[in-house]
Amino acid sequence: MQVGLVGLGRMGHNMRERLREAGHKVVGYALDPEVSDVRTLTDLVDSLSTPRAVWLMVPSGEPTHSLVAELTKLLSVGDIVIDGGNSRFTEDLEHARMLGAKGIGYVDCGVSGGIWGREHGYGLMVGGDAEYVERLMPIFDALRPDGPREEGFVHAGDVGAGHYAKMVHNGVEYGLMQAYAEGFELLEASDRVTNVPGVFNAWRRGTVVRSWLLDLLVEALDEDPSLSELVGYVEDSGEGRWVVAEALESEVPTPTMAAALFARFASRQSDSPAMRAVAALRQQFGGHSVRSAGPNESTAGSG
Amino acid sequence: MQVGLVGLGRMGHNMRERLREAGHKVVGYALDPEVSDVRTLTDLVDSLSTPRAVWLMVPSGEPTHSLVAELTKLLSVGDIVIDGGNSRFTEDLEHARMLGAKGIGYVDCGVSGGIWGREHGYGLMVGGDAEYVERLMPIFDALRPDGPREEGFVHAGDVGAGHYAKMVHNGVEYGLMQAYAEGFELLEASDRVTNVPGVFNAWRRGTVVRSWLLDLLVEALDEDPSLSELVGYVEDSGEGRWVVAEALESEVPTPTMAAALFARFASRQSDSPAMRAVAALRQQFGGHSVRSAGPNESTAGSG
Amino acid sequence: MQVGLVGLGRMGHNMRERLREAGHKVVGYALDPEVSDVRTLTDLVDSLSTPRAVWLMVPSGEPTHSLVAELTKLLSVGDIVIDGGNSRFTEDLEHARMLGAKGIGYVDCGVSGGIWGREHGYGLMVGGDAEYVERLMPIFDALRPDGPREEGFVHAGDVGAGHYAKMVHNGVEYGLMQAYAEGFELLEASDRVTNVPGVFNAWRRGTVVRSWLLDLLVEALDEDPSLSELVGYVEDSGEGRWVVAEALESEVPTPTMAAALFARFASRQSDSPAMRAVAALRQQFGGHSVRSAGPNESTAGSG
Amino acid sequence: MQVGLVGLGRMGHNMRERLREAGHKVVGYALDPEVSDVRTLTDLVDSLSTPRAVWLMVPSGEPTHSLVAELTKLLSVGDIVIDGGNSRFTEDLEHARMLGAKGIGYVDCGVSGGIWGREHGYGLMVGGDAEYVERLMPIFDALRPDGPREEGFVHAGDVGAGHYAKMVHNGVEYGLMQAYAEGFELLEASDRVTNVPGVFNAWRRGTVVRSWLLDLLVEALDEDPSLSELVGYVEDSGEGRWVVAEALESEVPTPTMAAALFARFASRQSDSPAMRAVAALRQQFGGHSVRSAGPNESTAGSG
Repeated sequence: MQVGLVGLGRMGHNMRERLREAGHKVVGYALDPEVSDVRTLTDLVDSLSTPRAVWLMVPSGEPTHSLVAELTKLLSVGDIVIDGGNSRFTEDLEHARMLGAKGIGYVDCGVSGGIWGREHGYGLMVGGDAEYVERLMPIFDALRPDGPREEGFVHAGDVGAGHYAKMVHNGVEYGLMQAYAEGFELLEASDRVTNVPGVFNAWRRGTVVRSWLLDLLVEALDEDPSLSELVGYVEDSGEGRWVVAEALESEVPTPTMAAALFARFASRQSDSPAMRAVAALRQQFGGHSVRSAGPNESTAGSG
Repeated sequence: MQVGLVGLGRMGHNMRERLREAGHKVVGYALDPEVSDVRTLTDLVDSLSTPRAVWLMVPSGEPTHSLVAELTKLLSVGDIVIDGGNSRFTEDLEHARMLGAKGIGYVDCGVSGGIWGREHGYGLMVGGDAEYVERLMPIFDALRPDGPREEGFVHAGDVGAGHYAKMVHNGVEYGLMQAYAEGFELLEASDRVTNVPGVFNAWRRGTVVRSWLLDLLVEALDEDPSLSELVGYVEDSGEGRWVVAEALESEVPTPTMAAALFARFASRQSDSPAMRAVAALRQQFGGHSVRSAGPNESTAGSG
Repeated sequence: MQVGLVGLGRMGHNMRERLREAGHKVVGYALDPEVSDVRTLTDLVDSLSTPRAVWLMVPSGEPTHSLVAELTKLLSVGDIVIDGGNSRFTEDLEHARMLGAKGIGYVDCGVSGGIWGREHGYGLMVGGDAEYVERLMPIFDALRPDGPREEGFVHAGDVGAGHYAKMVHNGVEYGLMQAYAEGFELLEASDRVTNVPGVFNAWRRGTVVRSWLLDLLVEALDEDPSLSELVGYVEDSGEGRWVVAEALESEVPTPTMAAALFARFASRQSDSPAMRAVAALRQQFGGHSVRSAGPNESTAGSG
Repeated sequence: MQVGLVGLGRMGHNMRERLREAGHKVVGYALDPEVSDVRTLTDLVDSLSTPRAVWLMVPSGEPTHSLVAELTKLLSVGDIVIDGGNSRFTEDLEHARMLGAKGIGYVDCGVSGGIWGREHGYGLMVGGDAEYVERLMPIFDALRPDGPREEGFVHAGDVGAGHYAKMVHNGVEYGLMQAYAEGFELLEASDRVTNVPGVFNAWRRGTVVRSWLLDLLVEALDEDPSLSELVGYVEDSGEGRWVVAEALESEVPTPTMAAALFARFASRQSDSPAMRAVAALRQQFGGHSVRSAGPNESTAGSG
């Protein structure tokens, strides 16, 4: 079938390729004329026959929001907009409302798979009306991995359910990564274990902890056995924060997700204000020596 | 080759089967005459030709320790004892010393795979002298999963390295399980997501969080879609505690492993003494009403 | 000076008393005619001479918001509204804007002290223009504890700073309470310590952990030495969640505040969905027995 | 009364002064002849009339252990050894056994108060036989703060109970410090709050979070309002680890104590191996750019 695709970055570009390989007609639009198939968003809309399907693959927040606003004007009754980006599920409700007021359908689709998706396919979590989801199934089937449909695709619920499920997916992902990472540090800390990359490699078959992330860690260790070419500085995307914020709303204890997020925050601090306060307290009550910020660091005392 | 196997419980029994299927001659010994191949430990030793290999698959702590002590008397120079149970790595050093004083070799082997190991093979993490490990490779090759040897087996280092690696494996496992579990609770808590088992199923292909544990969770949800037939009461084996204790020794921050362990502790409490103390404090400073332990529970106030 | 006080609940009622004892003229308004000094909000406004000061002491969210909206209509240029309730600091900006459009001043004031405030005085954290704060100092001085002004009062910054500081205060409070509570549980868990209330009492003088909360815990233990008349079920007010949400926004690691909050969430669950998922996983991979929700609970296996 | 005091460091020296001011005869012994009252341990023992009381104030572990071993030889039936250092409670049992075999009594005493103890008195938590504790009360009364005895002294239970209580005290202390420290970082992170030291100062009276540690933090902020002269590098004494290790043994969830300890571990790392592993994973699955350890740091990508 035909689909418009707005946003041709790392993800969008690969998805266009995968869709075309599956025989779909994709009209891609991006600001960069080098990669764009059409000159303007209006051209994209005009190039599609009705009822249209326009898939958004742009950053969440303002970029997605203003695009939805523009499409509200350009599209017609019966068209569908699919937000495949990382929007917060709360925004889906607003976007569905805006488009719905003009008779335009809305489907949110959480997409997982990163740079591997073009080859392996993308895990898809979809929210919206069954009627719209049904109409888009050829697109979803082309994007999702081979194998049983239900192992790479889910119609999770009404509008917002797709991005909610993707948000939770990312929270789980943070926790999984942190668990392996703590394991790495413990193995590295041991005098006893002399073949740390070998241990991770040996976990790939037969063990309880085997996973795709483990496979990736083994690849990273293949190239750099002690990961010494990297710095322990880790960004976080919005979803990691949203999922903990949602846990607060829902009163769900999520200690590992929060711990994984906090570890990333801490990784980006050159110095911790909180730990300066702890050092100050120890100095006050115990006379413990501290490290001063000046040029001559004194040795820290114990206690 | 020939191997003696002491301990024929859930794990040992399956390992005997897998070894025999691979063509090895296994003499199994257990207290239960129904499953034991010989009547006594002495019979087991006598039935093997030298140099012997005796694999222990019994509970860690006292059972393993007394068995090693007994074998110190029964075995001869050049024999090897392999501890395939869940011993703490610190105990390996003592056992190696005890046996080494009599010229008997010692190898520790962390074994992962649970009840699936007989069919899939067991992930093996081994510590000890290269000479002993080399001699035992036919056994290890029979037990480990098919595929490249290094993806299901590692000689991780000297004595203790195998159990250390297995201990870390279990810490990672705790973290992974807790991460999926928090995701489950968040999905269940959402009004938006109406197909929770479907979401987990859809994560199996293409997504970043795909793993064997995820596959197992999908199977559990297949049978019981909201897991309502279970109680949220979770035991912990020693290794989960050892790994956090080791983190304390090594000064490695392991917040997700500790969180996963604490969640299990809490899951087994019918009432939390700590939270009684928090309730008492809120009542004292804020006049907040509390739930009393008596028959008529008052409603808890907010604040 | 003269002040209008809207809201005469647990906090407002006591504050009216303390203000009157200090010689101020307080006109209190509440829905309950038994405690209200005037019949309507309009009466309250009319009974004050200009420029007026109206102190709000009502629940945060909608109640405070609609009250501000009403006062926007009733008050005049030069009057001041003080929000002494537990509003989120983000709401202060909106309220200041609404009132400011009519030339009415706005000051936010975080108030700590609970039921003890009437006697001890209230710790006050204030945000807003220096001019307004200056005008209100007689009120603040009457409410705050005796002693140096700066030890019970702070003009923390511009609009919102007072509630922000109070929000952080509550986050700290959660952490402190949880720390004592974990200590209580550890002491209770020990066979060795036979006088747990005595230990807390002995911490009151000379030790590093002495505090007002400790004094309160000692009083609670005086009445109920093992706190056995309470249930470990703990509510949380909004501020505990807001402070963690703000930590997410600000990228500040707050592991103890989050842990304290999650412990409260967990305390209110009769069964943990997350731990059901962990139990399900252990059953799947290890054949570990689990507790089923049915009438006959099996014993949980270890592993 | 008469008491021998072994160890005249920061703590021991001050305690000798406080005891002498109370009229007790203290014979102090330390390796440093400048501060020691006697030349040898034998001299110390000889200078005391029987039944003797010898108070140990030396580092825990080997120093305390070898001292107990020596005193086992030097002391006589009916003498008492008091360990006022920071020994692990498990060691008390061994020391009591060693001394008890010779008819010598043993009392363990956890001491809190740091450098302020000489002036304010020391909080004392004592374990041992009532008979010995009774005999030592004049010493305890001199060391503890003024005020009711039970607010600065507790006979917590049998041998080990004193050090157990002190260990828990330190765990609580870690949690309290971390809570204030997170509050400091949140206040510093806010654009809204312009007077952070003022906020802490204002918490000293009337608020729920008032405490001695808060007073100390205010003093530190007086000298250095943003604590910019310190580095966020914090040591930990053994007790912080022991208390979490004990929580593992006792199956008590202690998330805030563990979080406080892990924050200290992390504060001492110039780079986190765990976060290098997370960075490596993100690079592998998402093509996220990372910071390399080389001279030219690339900008970190988001995602």
